[in-house]
Amino acid sequence: MIDKAAIYHRPESEYAYMYDSKTVHIRIRTKKDNVEKVNILHGDPYLIYLPNQLMKSPLTKIASSRWHDYWQIELSGPHRRMSYIFELEAADEIIYYSDIGALSHEVSHLDIAYNYFKLPYLHEADRFKEPRWVKDTVWYHIFPERFANGDPSLTPEGALPWNSTIVPKNRDFFGGDLKGIYDHLDYLEDLGINGLYFCPIFEANSNHKYDTVDYYEIDKHFGDKEMFRKLVDEAHRRGMRVMLDAVFNHIGSHAPQWLDIVEKGEQSIYKDWFHIHSLPIKAVDMKDYRNYQAINYDAFGYVPNMPKWNTSHPEVKQHLLAIAKYWIEEFDIDAWRLDVANEVDHRFWRSFHDEVTALKPDFYIVGEIWHSSQAWLQGDQFHAVMNYPLTRAISDFFLTKTANATELNERIQEQTMLYRKQTNQVMLNSLDSHDTPRILTIAGGDKKAVKSALAFMYLQQGSPCLYYGTEMGLDGGNDPECRKVMPWDPEQQDLDMHAFVRQLIHLRREYAHHIVNGTTSYQVEGNLIMVEIVYDEKVIKGYFNQSEESVTVEKDGLEVLLELMVEDHEIQAGGLMIVNGSMVKI
Amino acid sequence: MIDKAAIYHRPESEYAYMYDSKTVHIRIRTKKDNVEKVNILHGDPYLIYLPNQLMKSPLTKIASSRWHDYWQIELSGPHRRMSYIFELEAADEIIYYSDIGALSHEVSHLDIAYNYFKLPYLHEADRFKEPRWVKDTVWYHIFPERFANGDPSLTPEGALPWNSTIVPKNRDFFGGDLKGIYDHLDYLEDLGINGLYFCPIFEANSNHKYDTVDYYEIDKHFGDKEMFRKLVDEAHRRGMRVMLDAVFNHIGSHAPQWLDIVEKGEQSIYKDWFHIHSLPIKAVDMKDYRNYQAINYDAFGYVPNMPKWNTSHPEVKQHLLAIAKYWIEEFDIDAWRLDVANEVDHRFWRSFHDEVTALKPDFYIVGEIWHSSQAWLQGDQFHAVMNYPLTRAISDFFLTKTANATELNERIQEQTMLYRKQTNQVMLNSLDSHDTPRILTIAGGDKKAVKSALAFMYLQQGSPCLYYGTEMGLDGGNDPECRKVMPWDPEQQDLDMHAFVRQLIHLRREYAHHIVNGTTSYQVEGNLIMVEIVYDEKVIKGYFNQSEESVTVEKDGLEVLLELMVEDHEIQAGGLMIVNGSMVKI
Repeated sequence: MIDKAAIYHRPESEYAYMYDSKTVHIRIRTKKDNVEKVNILHGDPYLIYLPNQLMKSPLTKIASSRWHDYWQIELSGPHRRMSYIFELEAADEIIYYSDIGALSHEVSHLDIAYNYFKLPYLHEADRFKEPRWVKDTVWYHIFPERFANGDPSLTPEGALPWNSTIVPKNRDFFGGDLKGIYDHLDYLEDLGINGLYFCPIFEANSNHKYDTVDYYEIDKHFGDKEMFRKLVDEAHRRGMRVMLDAVFNHIGSHAPQWLDIVEKGEQSIYKDWFHIHSLPIKAVDMKDYRNYQAINYDAFGYVPNMPKWNTSHPEVKQHLLAIAKYWIEEFDIDAWRLDVANEVDHRFWRSFHDEVTALKPDFYIVGEIWHSSQAWLQGDQFHAVMNYPLTRAISDFFLTKTANATELNERIQEQTMLYRKQTNQVMLNSLDSHDTPRILTIAGGDKKAVKSALAFMYLQQGSPCLYYGTEMGLDGGNDPECRKVMPWDPEQQDLDMHAFVRQLIHLRREYAHHIVNGTTSYQVEGNLIMVEIVYDEKVIKGYFNQSEESVTVEKDGLEVLLELMVEDHEIQAGGLMIVNGSMVKI
Repeated sequence: MIDKAAIYHRPESEYAYMYDSKTVHIRIRTKKDNVEKVNILHGDPYLIYLPNQLMKSPLTKIASSRWHDYWQIELSGPHRRMSYIFELEAADEIIYYSDIGALSHEVSHLDIAYNYFKLPYLHEADRFKEPRWVKDTVWYHIFPERFANGDPSLTPEGALPWNSTIVPKNRDFFGGDLKGIYDHLDYLEDLGINGLYFCPIFEANSNHKYDTVDYYEIDKHFGDKEMFRKLVDEAHRRGMRVMLDAVFNHIGSHAPQWLDIVEKGEQSIYKDWFHIHSLPIKAVDMKDYRNYQAINYDAFGYVPNMPKWNTSHPEVKQHLLAIAKYWIEEFDIDAWRLDVANEVDHRFWRSFHDEVTALKPDFYIVGEIWHSSQAWLQGDQFHAVMNYPLTRAISDFFLTKTANATELNERIQEQTMLYRKQTNQVMLNSLDSHDTPRILTIAGGDKKAVKSALAFMYLQQGSPCLYYGTEMGLDGGNDPECRKVMPWDPEQQDLDMHAFVRQLIHLRREYAHHIVNGTTSYQVEGNLIMVEIVYDEKVIKGYFNQSEESVTVEKDGLEVLLELMVEDHEIQAGGLMIVNGSMVKI
């Protein structure tokens, strides 16, 4: 029997959407291994009662998670309106699944307009439009204070020596700056990078600059606008895109608007620009979260020096949107990464989306959201989020070994099914960041595991993002330890890791179109997971052997794109192989 | 075992939302009769790892449909951020249900931030804000050409005599006008009506006026702006709200913009204002839908004289929004009903929502959508839709007898769970309209059935809407037959029906607060359905006996609010009783 309670479909969502201007995707979820076949009956709502106007087409099972199968069809109608109803078939039962739920398989149900789901009219205006260049981009994520010191005259007083073995503390400075990045564009280009993502660079007191003082100024220790313009222009000349970090959830407590409130209290013209519970503002030295009730205003978490913006206030909204546009109009940046994006209101982000894409139609908007993000990824707010659930799934399998290959497979598929195909194609995929321990540390120093995890991620849908220094074997625990300086001293560099990562990035760049637009499937045997990506009658396969035994793979006549721990035809335990071809047998 | 595949929860949707400024509702769906208890573990995401900050609260089973149980909890503060995870308990199993799906019941899962669903920050700006007055409104739906002729000087030439036994044809005129409505405000006030909903009144050629020629003029056969202003002002003086019909999906082919295209073709400045496939525009006399391919532009359905607006075009958008605002600014109307709302783009409706509610914050926006409408009812577009799925459920049980009481119960609950509580509270509930057969005709002339259906609907959440003439026993099949003239001739009036409907409306008005804000549950015994609404320790109960047998009800000490076919303590087959009290036994 078909488990009717497990069926799910949601009209006008990731279950029914325009993929491109002429194509719609329709999905339905069923209980795992419960349904053998799914068809869709579809047609123009105003015509389906005429002969031959109600068409029947089969869906394909495109994903299986722990509890569910997901079925999808790509349709490109003659019409821009669509009524549809599903037909589900199991060994012992056939049913219709309609807008009012499961129905028996009587043809008379097809005569009733109420039973049909609807895509009432396909509006290009409502389509989720992904910036296409992102699919071909490999990002390099830079924490500017720690990447390179190009202009010692800007280095803060008391900065520590540039030594990647020093474990940084919260208030340490080392002297990284924009000139340092500019000077290493050759290095990044050689690595294969074509997207630069910078943590905040605007004037702020901390080393991380998430406590913005002035959104219109480059921090004086990083450089100035002239340097920034030079950097963006040179990056663009090399075909590299530039993404900045927009901290619009909160401000730094040294910003003039906040100081005005601290000073003038009720008389401040800014008092409604924040979420203030009572005045005057209390000075709280909050070393311990248990004192959270002492703060008399909303902040990022309960961090006193990061008061939260009231983004619903029209003047605040205008103020922040003007900033967002300024750096596009004046410096031609290509993307904003939005800090703590989930805690800002959706109305703000809708305006943000509309205003920045009006300036630059292929602009890329990425929210920092760590959890399920359907509410932001319907096409009217962000193009992508930082894909931490994927990070975690890969990390649990390759790095901490707390999940097996089956779980990895299921979790990836469950995540993928939360979003439209074009959303998944532009997700920002990292394995670590300035907010997490570094992968080498998560892996307990196991470099093979790090390589496998990276290689696996680079075969996924979405835009891979490398955290600076990973390619040099940099390690470090949670913030601030994950923010060591980049090892430019050859003695501190892991050149073997560098060579591997470089090869991987070049592979990804070369096959980006195939990887992102292909059909991906996974096969699991014990703790071996194989990724197979089929596109245009070609296939890329990645074998990741995390089992205890070696595995033999036929590779005669195939092009090996990347391998680790492969001897002859055997992938050793912990090894991997990525090949390009058509038929590979285990 | 718990059926994990059947569980559904969607963050920031009708499953997790702000109900009022301080209250959130969290829902989860489980397989019917599969789970015995559901708890939620919740707290501020930045505090839950401190002692006693992760709280546990029980959900209540608030609905059961054919395949599912729905559980809900109302939570208020103290924080404006929330992490949450569900705990589901069956006889033989306890699990957590997390942002990554079902998890075993190990406390260590609660230590991992990734496992929590999030309401990242409760923004009043994002809350679905219902206009509160709608909850206390009973609407009267008028097809203006057919309600009353108050000014014979405006009557179209060749109009038929005012006789409610005449079955209208598509192109008939009878001479109804605004003065006729104005003259009957006493009648409507006596009936208990406090909301007037008019089909289109703007200049157009047809009797139904859905083929607008000029959105800025009152149709000359209906009156003029002075008359309309007088009508609105007098309605407001009596505490009645006024809703107009906005036909923004399409225009009439006699409108100047369309005639300009027909005449000038490529040279017309309006050619991008519509969805034109090729020029010149072909003249198509389409009596038969099978000729649909002959039309070379998108239209409402395939109706040649109703070309579809390109609502994504900035000038069209501005043009239509200006109209929407004009009738609010100049005449102070209270609501727009949006014709064919589902076929217009969401971006247009978001702007519409924002602009009209900026003018009048408690403005009411109702879309004409006949199917599941989650995509329009997230708080950024409409407040309600015409609740045809409820219409159909009630109709199938009471009028056509094609569904039993259990199905009625299940369908109502399934529908209710598609939306937020505040959405359900302001849904526009009709049993018939100018687009459907009249209920008396659907019921095959069974007036008891009509009374029961009406009484049942008036006990539901949402704002009931009476189609003109129902209270006088008017009948009629599908359009145009459902558009007979209002029987003002006493010999054509059903005064028994009038008395019943009047009593029902007054009941609904008196107990509106109780009905809309109370907790509704249903009990079914055979084909008897009982509606119980509990509010503030008081209870209203409605018994609807559609079985073949009479049913005995204890009513000692209770106030009978309405009854039909009740003898002593027995509700006859087809009868009903609504009582006000606390304990009633069957």
